[in-house]
Amino acid sequence: MTLSLQEALERIRPVDPAKEAAVQARLDIQTKPPGSLGRLEEFARRYVAITGRESIGKKVIFTCAGDHGVTEEGISAFPREVTPQMVLNFLDGGAGINALARHAGAEVVVVDLGVDYDFPPMDGLLRRKIRAGTNNFVRGPAMSREEAVRAIETGLELALICRERQIGLVGTGDMGIGNTTPSSAIAAVLTGLTAAQVTHRGTGINDEMLARKIRVIEKGIEQNAPDRRDPVDVLAKVGGFEIGGIAGIVLGCAALSIPVVVDGFISTAGALIASELHPHVRDYIFAAHRSVEIGHGHILERLGQEPMLDLQMRLGEGTGAALAMTLIEAAMRMLREIRTFEEAGVSRERQK
Amino acid sequence: MTLSLQEALERIRPVDPAKEAAVQARLDIQTKPPGSLGRLEEFARRYVAITGRESIGKKVIFTCAGDHGVTEEGISAFPREVTPQMVLNFLDGGAGINALARHAGAEVVVVDLGVDYDFPPMDGLLRRKIRAGTNNFVRGPAMSREEAVRAIETGLELALICRERQIGLVGTGDMGIGNTTPSSAIAAVLTGLTAAQVTHRGTGINDEMLARKIRVIEKGIEQNAPDRRDPVDVLAKVGGFEIGGIAGIVLGCAALSIPVVVDGFISTAGALIASELHPHVRDYIFAAHRSVEIGHGHILERLGQEPMLDLQMRLGEGTGAALAMTLIEAAMRMLREIRTFEEAGVSRERQK
Repeated sequence: MTLSLQEALERIRPVDPAKEAAVQARLDIQTKPPGSLGRLEEFARRYVAITGRESIGKKVIFTCAGDHGVTEEGISAFPREVTPQMVLNFLDGGAGINALARHAGAEVVVVDLGVDYDFPPMDGLLRRKIRAGTNNFVRGPAMSREEAVRAIETGLELALICRERQIGLVGTGDMGIGNTTPSSAIAAVLTGLTAAQVTHRGTGINDEMLARKIRVIEKGIEQNAPDRRDPVDVLAKVGGFEIGGIAGIVLGCAALSIPVVVDGFISTAGALIASELHPHVRDYIFAAHRSVEIGHGHILERLGQEPMLDLQMRLGEGTGAALAMTLIEAAMRMLREIRTFEEAGVSRERQK
Repeated sequence: MTLSLQEALERIRPVDPAKEAAVQARLDIQTKPPGSLGRLEEFARRYVAITGRESIGKKVIFTCAGDHGVTEEGISAFPREVTPQMVLNFLDGGAGINALARHAGAEVVVVDLGVDYDFPPMDGLLRRKIRAGTNNFVRGPAMSREEAVRAIETGLELALICRERQIGLVGTGDMGIGNTTPSSAIAAVLTGLTAAQVTHRGTGINDEMLARKIRVIEKGIEQNAPDRRDPVDVLAKVGGFEIGGIAGIVLGCAALSIPVVVDGFISTAGALIASELHPHVRDYIFAAHRSVEIGHGHILERLGQEPMLDLQMRLGEGTGAALAMTLIEAAMRMLREIRTFEEAGVSRERQK
């Protein structure tokens, strides 16, 4: 089975608030003051309303990788060859996402959507290269519209695989030297803010490079004039292949009723493209954390999401998603295991 | 072996910043931009600097229980008999703390420091009752100074037990109907703020009860005139037995170099007493989360702590501590498992 972008958009439905209310009614007779587990209660309500299930089972984090032509403008502290080097590190289990995914009990699947390196077939790697890196968007569109659709449809394929494998929770992650630059460009176009308002230091550039990065984003937007009302056009003009893949995963999860934990800045740029394509996508998103990147808060606001964690992280790869998954697991355990007042023989609160 | 309050205070040393720096130096050659795992890096640094160890091992949460004479003023939404009922629920494994401690892989030990009920010997319960509930502090001191010292020294005994059992991480928690009232009173006295600034709705009281609760706290402070420079006096005049026990656990952990995860509002009131007794106690504290209680932020500020989580929780019992423990576990895994640039063959960032 395959899922086209159009088919995915047609399948997306809002999550039924009555289902959430039914879960809350049960939480309210558990032995604790009503609402006192705060956002854990929200996570449990939303998970059950989306899936109809009370336990998560298998979890997968897709770390989507791609290279960026815009790196030739000198906007990153790391050289471009780090993208394939880190992909190999992921496959060897030695990176941040591997450590935190093991902590969370999640499988890491690395997806090559556009790395400038030919990987042989390897365990844990899905080879779905659209092209070996985008074009430098200062000189023209990062990719063609057809490539943008293919990147999104690759993400849809991943969501379909998750449905077949009965994955209960999907996480997104990214790897791509330079990819905060297209993410800031997407954020600027889709929120209507200036490049300066949504551009930060990425993996750690200095003031001079930051000023250059902002100018590069401004030029890219001016040069390509992406159409804010057409998210696929925005992805094509100033996006990236891995960002398109993430947009597709989020869209596919929404179409197939799989809750999706969206990692930090780059992942939310992908989620924003998905959410602008269909308003009910947001019902399926769990925003993992608030990144240090200044554009992230603006994207989260536009997505209508309050992040689960704020640990001053800015690594990407899906590391925030891995941590957030453990909070959803905790929420489900709360739902399943706390006894009711009646079961435990505990007196209720007085009527007010 | 026993530990008196005086002996504990004499043992407390600041944590060596050079040890933290050594851990950070290692984190900085791991395959990620320096500092990009944010507060996880802080948690790992602090844990290793306190213990000299790179894995946690066994974890215990002490849920300290006590009753409060001040409940006769009508300041709680729940009747007083809920304290022993919830203790039995903890021992049966059916409460919030049980679910979240199982999630965190932590053992729950319930400590009766002052519940108005005679428990038989039971698995998982430490019977260390000082007295069956404090006095109503509107009419006089909640307890004698000697009782306050005994409550603290009970906590010190618990820390000693943890050292003997080689517990790698201790969490605090509380149960006691009415105990946000003494916690707010302690917060007001030790921060110098008014009762209204640090008093909130506890487990869910209405406006009228909130106004009454504030008046009760004001009266208690006026009536007993606790001495702000003498934290044991503050505990005795307007505190609670379980709060004294928590103060002792925190102090004992500091004296014995065991990192201690302090739960929400009531637990931080105990930690504040410990911290006012000795300034270096704070080096050993991990503040689990930001509670909904308005006084909590003021206590955290005085403790010099930034909470790890903000999930709008207000249950107590140690539930926030259980969740926070999982983040420290994640941090230790990061430290142990991420490869260095050299090991993984990944290029470093360019010199700036």
